[in-house]
Amino acid sequence: MDTRPRVIIIGAGFGGLFAAQTLKHKAVDVLLIDRNNFHTFTPLLYQVATSGLEAEEIAYPIRGIFRAGSNISFMLGTVEGIDATAKTVSVRTNGNVRQEAYNYLIVAGGSVTNYFANPQFSDIAFELKSVDDAVVLRNHILRQFERAAWTDDEAHRRALTALVVVGGGPTGLETSGALFELFEHVLSKEYTALKPRIVLIEALDRLLTPFPQPLQQSAYRQLESLGVEVILGNGVADITPDSVRLNDGTVIPTYTLIWSAGVKANPLAEMLGVPLKRGGRVPITPSIDVIGQNDIYVIGDMAYLEDEQGQPYPMLIPVAKQEGQLAAKNILRRVAGWEQQNFHYIDRGIMATIGRHRAVAYLFNRIQLSGFLAWVSWLGLHLLTLMGFRNRVAVFVDWVWNYFTYDRSVRVILEPKGEIPETEKTP
Amino acid sequence: MDTRPRVIIIGAGFGGLFAAQTLKHKAVDVLLIDRNNFHTFTPLLYQVATSGLEAEEIAYPIRGIFRAGSNISFMLGTVEGIDATAKTVSVRTNGNVRQEAYNYLIVAGGSVTNYFANPQFSDIAFELKSVDDAVVLRNHILRQFERAAWTDDEAHRRALTALVVVGGGPTGLETSGALFELFEHVLSKEYTALKPRIVLIEALDRLLTPFPQPLQQSAYRQLESLGVEVILGNGVADITPDSVRLNDGTVIPTYTLIWSAGVKANPLAEMLGVPLKRGGRVPITPSIDVIGQNDIYVIGDMAYLEDEQGQPYPMLIPVAKQEGQLAAKNILRRVAGWEQQNFHYIDRGIMATIGRHRAVAYLFNRIQLSGFLAWVSWLGLHLLTLMGFRNRVAVFVDWVWNYFTYDRSVRVILEPKGEIPETEKTP
Repeated sequence: MDTRPRVIIIGAGFGGLFAAQTLKHKAVDVLLIDRNNFHTFTPLLYQVATSGLEAEEIAYPIRGIFRAGSNISFMLGTVEGIDATAKTVSVRTNGNVRQEAYNYLIVAGGSVTNYFANPQFSDIAFELKSVDDAVVLRNHILRQFERAAWTDDEAHRRALTALVVVGGGPTGLETSGALFELFEHVLSKEYTALKPRIVLIEALDRLLTPFPQPLQQSAYRQLESLGVEVILGNGVADITPDSVRLNDGTVIPTYTLIWSAGVKANPLAEMLGVPLKRGGRVPITPSIDVIGQNDIYVIGDMAYLEDEQGQPYPMLIPVAKQEGQLAAKNILRRVAGWEQQNFHYIDRGIMATIGRHRAVAYLFNRIQLSGFLAWVSWLGLHLLTLMGFRNRVAVFVDWVWNYFTYDRSVRVILEPKGEIPETEKTP
Repeated sequence: MDTRPRVIIIGAGFGGLFAAQTLKHKAVDVLLIDRNNFHTFTPLLYQVATSGLEAEEIAYPIRGIFRAGSNISFMLGTVEGIDATAKTVSVRTNGNVRQEAYNYLIVAGGSVTNYFANPQFSDIAFELKSVDDAVVLRNHILRQFERAAWTDDEAHRRALTALVVVGGGPTGLETSGALFELFEHVLSKEYTALKPRIVLIEALDRLLTPFPQPLQQSAYRQLESLGVEVILGNGVADITPDSVRLNDGTVIPTYTLIWSAGVKANPLAEMLGVPLKRGGRVPITPSIDVIGQNDIYVIGDMAYLEDEQGQPYPMLIPVAKQEGQLAAKNILRRVAGWEQQNFHYIDRGIMATIGRHRAVAYLFNRIQLSGFLAWVSWLGLHLLTLMGFRNRVAVFVDWVWNYFTYDRSVRVILEPKGEIPETEKTP
């Protein structure tokens, strides 16, 4: 069995998972490495942060997806180095560093939050890139409300209950909409004296840049009708633990700033020894292998590939999935001595949800939906693509329950090693 | 409204919650204080630790139980002092210490793990007293299996997959049984090379001391038939991060020792300035108020009250519930100028589950059930008493799913602030 080529996949996000799935039961040995023992259904992180879903409902154990006995093994660890000459990966796992050899490598590390010119913002801002982030943010928000409930200082109370979301992309819209609904339908009954304020800030003069203009405007109207304050054309100049200052000088006192204004490639990209493109992405050929390192395939948010119009493919789950599948297929083709195939993106559309009955969808580059119909499409799509039947049932129970009762039961402040520590980011 | 008497309840466990429930809509103002913003359904903590339930399924937000506008307010904080003369409680909350005045105080702090003569064991042993404990233990167990999967050293692998539970009470039986089933039905398929060992240690020569002898023997047989090694009449002499040594010199190499050999009253008891009884419990009168401090009521695991036979009432949820209800009623009677009533415990029985179809129950001090019938009773009782309809639905979905599939989806290692830190107790 030593003669079977070994494929290492770094990262069990959507790209890595679909690559592994494509290699299952094929004549290669696969080692899948991730720093978590679960796959995260990232599109619903904001639901965990806003108490709509339990953390475990959007996390699916990787060993449950690839049961033992298959050609896919899993290693829990972080990658510390890639040696493209020796063809090895250094993995820190359980306190040791192991060298794992590969014949083919698929790098699927995804993206990290991009603070652009202000990396120091990361000390204060909250992110929504991982389950941990979502749980930390949920704990923090609920804690601010507990603080506000026992504060006599009116200005302090307003700052505690002002939540600011930066970034007018799908994550920003989803998060600000879900925050508003959390307060409107649940917390308002438990903290009657509190009047929260949800602010969405976007530096450009429009929301949802990749969407057609009518949908951008519809999204704006839907947010405003919900009660979210939308500030366009005004970026963040500075943030402190208790305020955010905008480019026009406006200061909003707040203890909660959620940064969803952009992402960049996972810094793993720097280990590949090739010049990187904008956003730290790795330039790949149409057959998904790295230019100049053709045993290494880079997929998803980390990969830079231009479409027929010369635009880079966006950092979206369907792109990652399809690149992952093609990378795996191309490796199998090379093992079989066949020629590689080129990437052709099948674009089924993009959507963003704003809240109950509120969403926008742009399907097949043609169909524009907004409001209830877009929302139902969004709901169905996410339920269908959630990994694992049991999770699907649980998420469905939660959603149906939330829908009919406007209630949310997951409002628990959970922190390992109890003793109610303030979160690190709580001043 | 200032003339309404103010009742402070410390602790939102079963006792505190039932006391608050009894005072709801009555002519008193109630302040309920807990260090978590949720009530924990403690009997199912072992299910969270063994990946059977999600943490949020056994945690119910306190503000969801007592919605605003009622006479019950909630404060998230830890009690740092009780001044019985000034009739105030010092609460550390959100970084400040507040003095809260009471007319009547109900102390319902529950119990903490008792290491008896070996308090240093707490540095190494795992406990199952809180949701945090359960999540930490779940993470730890799953991590040991990940380590074992990549270890070539056979002895090391055996130590990583040996799990030792100390204490032959209901928690010890439930935990060891559930651990065995987790491996047998789930992890064995994902870690085919691993053969775990579950050991239950009890210093006495029998399990489940308060149960009739036939049920003790039945519990022993059910555990053995499941595959759990049961060691009776042999206590723990010493534990190290990688082993446990028993009184007879036996050494079991293990990285996971779960201590469920006993509890003692919450150290809050020492703040009351009265001499304490065995296990640090506070002596109370039959009307539930503290002997010598009759504006203070102590209930549940913290309270020491003898029954007609001169035996202290056991540290059980039904005792805490009934004492909580009576404490609240007696406060209302005093407010109304009536005489207090005495405690009469309604004993519906005790039960312990061992696994799928395996349990023992001793009902109304008469009926002895074991096996399937006892297990069904246990299941029904817990579902009925779980707080909150939605949680009940979710727990039911999980249990039905686990029952028919032998699968458990909650096998995620979740740790805030990612970066796969080893847990503190992982060597």
